[in-house]
Amino acid sequence: MKSPLIGITVGDPAGIGPEIVVNALIKHALNRSHRLVVFADRSVIQQALDQTGQHAEIVEIGHPDEYTPDRDAIHLVNGQVLDGPVQMGLIQAACGRSVYQHVALAIEWAMQERIDAIATAPLQKESLKAGGCPHLDHTAICKALTRSDDATTLFMVDRLRVFFLTRHIPLRDIADAIDEKLLTEAIPRCLGYLEMLGLEKPNLAVAALNPHGGEDGLFGTEERDLIAPVILKMQGKGYRVEGPVPGDSVFHLAHEGIFSGVLSLYHDQGHIATKTLDFYRTVSLTLGLPFLRTSVDHGTAFNIAGKNKANETSMIEAIRCADQYAFQIRQGR
Amino acid sequence: MKSPLIGITVGDPAGIGPEIVVNALIKHALNRSHRLVVFADRSVIQQALDQTGQHAEIVEIGHPDEYTPDRDAIHLVNGQVLDGPVQMGLIQAACGRSVYQHVALAIEWAMQERIDAIATAPLQKESLKAGGCPHLDHTAICKALTRSDDATTLFMVDRLRVFFLTRHIPLRDIADAIDEKLLTEAIPRCLGYLEMLGLEKPNLAVAALNPHGGEDGLFGTEERDLIAPVILKMQGKGYRVEGPVPGDSVFHLAHEGIFSGVLSLYHDQGHIATKTLDFYRTVSLTLGLPFLRTSVDHGTAFNIAGKNKANETSMIEAIRCADQYAFQIRQGR
Repeated sequence: MKSPLIGITVGDPAGIGPEIVVNALIKHALNRSHRLVVFADRSVIQQALDQTGQHAEIVEIGHPDEYTPDRDAIHLVNGQVLDGPVQMGLIQAACGRSVYQHVALAIEWAMQERIDAIATAPLQKESLKAGGCPHLDHTAICKALTRSDDATTLFMVDRLRVFFLTRHIPLRDIADAIDEKLLTEAIPRCLGYLEMLGLEKPNLAVAALNPHGGEDGLFGTEERDLIAPVILKMQGKGYRVEGPVPGDSVFHLAHEGIFSGVLSLYHDQGHIATKTLDFYRTVSLTLGLPFLRTSVDHGTAFNIAGKNKANETSMIEAIRCADQYAFQIRQGR
Repeated sequence: MKSPLIGITVGDPAGIGPEIVVNALIKHALNRSHRLVVFADRSVIQQALDQTGQHAEIVEIGHPDEYTPDRDAIHLVNGQVLDGPVQMGLIQAACGRSVYQHVALAIEWAMQERIDAIATAPLQKESLKAGGCPHLDHTAICKALTRSDDATTLFMVDRLRVFFLTRHIPLRDIADAIDEKLLTEAIPRCLGYLEMLGLEKPNLAVAALNPHGGEDGLFGTEERDLIAPVILKMQGKGYRVEGPVPGDSVFHLAHEGIFSGVLSLYHDQGHIATKTLDFYRTVSLTLGLPFLRTSVDHGTAFNIAGKNKANETSMIEAIRCADQYAFQIRQGR
């Protein structure tokens, strides 16, 4: 069986995206071990090759059949927005237009099953907005263009897989944002995604909210009054879910393989765990779309863009992860 | 210069404390590399030797002058509470009495400068209470018997050093528990302790409370309205303090050496970081006493006690850490 064909978008041309993509493909030779197609302006890739000192032929293609096993070339789908070098590290409307054009192109290819998954380098929200894109970020673009209702984020590093029950809300609002409906819906969804990733009989741990899981009501009552009862009910329905497990042991236990995944209750709970464990190797997966999208978990780093100083590890991991799970996510749907 | 003489307490005799101490000293030969005195009943150490299959002579001493460089012996200060094997994994008043007696003895020796620091294995709060001890835990005993007002906990793993602004309170109360006074007092105290640990010109990062540090008020206002202004004021007074730094990058940056220490704002924030990074090698230091106390960061694990299954890594790290910083903490006071 052929390995999947992975589409890569380079994110904001003025950020570190193009250089980490070029370094991943050429310097780290992912081009040789994987089947990859880059969605970008030709001039952006040429500029990144110049910035990184890497050498590669750029082969423009208009259909996946034109992909050849010449692993030294960068296969490019050129959306033709920019036609010369961009100024690095600045918010530019043209860069925003280039991002949106190429992400939309990649999504079109993925919807037509010309490619099997997409790995994205970071974009800049302000550039995207300046370029007239009506969507906030990659996830919003993916949801809109694929008409998907759900888009679930999963963070992965080694064996640790983390879902999020709430995300961008103030810490003081978290406890009130968690209710029976939210938990009851999230547990089967997370377990379903873990199965889709190929885990056999996965089990999910729900993280606790309070220190020591509330210590029986001493430091918080949400575990006793809400989380534990929901888990019991879901266990009764046959779901392999456990917890609430105190936040300071649940991620360690999942990383050791005791749990297939963790449902973290708030943004920083899961983010602190994965990013402290391995900042560069944490990969973000967007699940619930008709295809898999993976992403680095860092930003455009305008302050060092174009200087060949950026760490490409997260980009490499995002590409590897897309390659590993592309077919499973397609088939699981 | 002689290396410090470290006192070790074994925690609850019915827990994993005695076996991890014996394994640290004999199996991992810390007895050969460090100067160690154990505070425990003779029968408890004998039982732990039997359980672990380790062999060592037990030499009871009544004064540090009796410590000899015979590194194959366990030097014991015997408080004579128990005189036979205990039943493992059960809450017992006699075990609570033994814990308190030996911790109190170790503190007495430390106050008299007979030993230079104390490393403690875990106790069981319920046993301690059943044994009639009026104090909740090790920290409370240390504070009471040394008449110390302050006792600051520092978690360490590799280069990552984490202080806590709040601890055992519900998550929903955290935002309101943090105020200008608490922050203003904590910053100089943490910096002072970092200096005491021998760090030159230490810098302290204050963690943010909300995701992305609130993103300029979008997901929470505490950074903008409280934390950033306090940090600015303290910087104006010459304190080397930075932040607020988002929770999901501050621990990674400190671990990479960018910050000497992190002031985490709540229990799980710092606990998730250290314990996910390295569950077994996280050591807890109690600062603010007349001597250094270090501790494992796990509990008595009654379910596996006496079975020689417990991981002694954290105990080893606690002893090494006590040895490394004992003199600095004494001199720093």
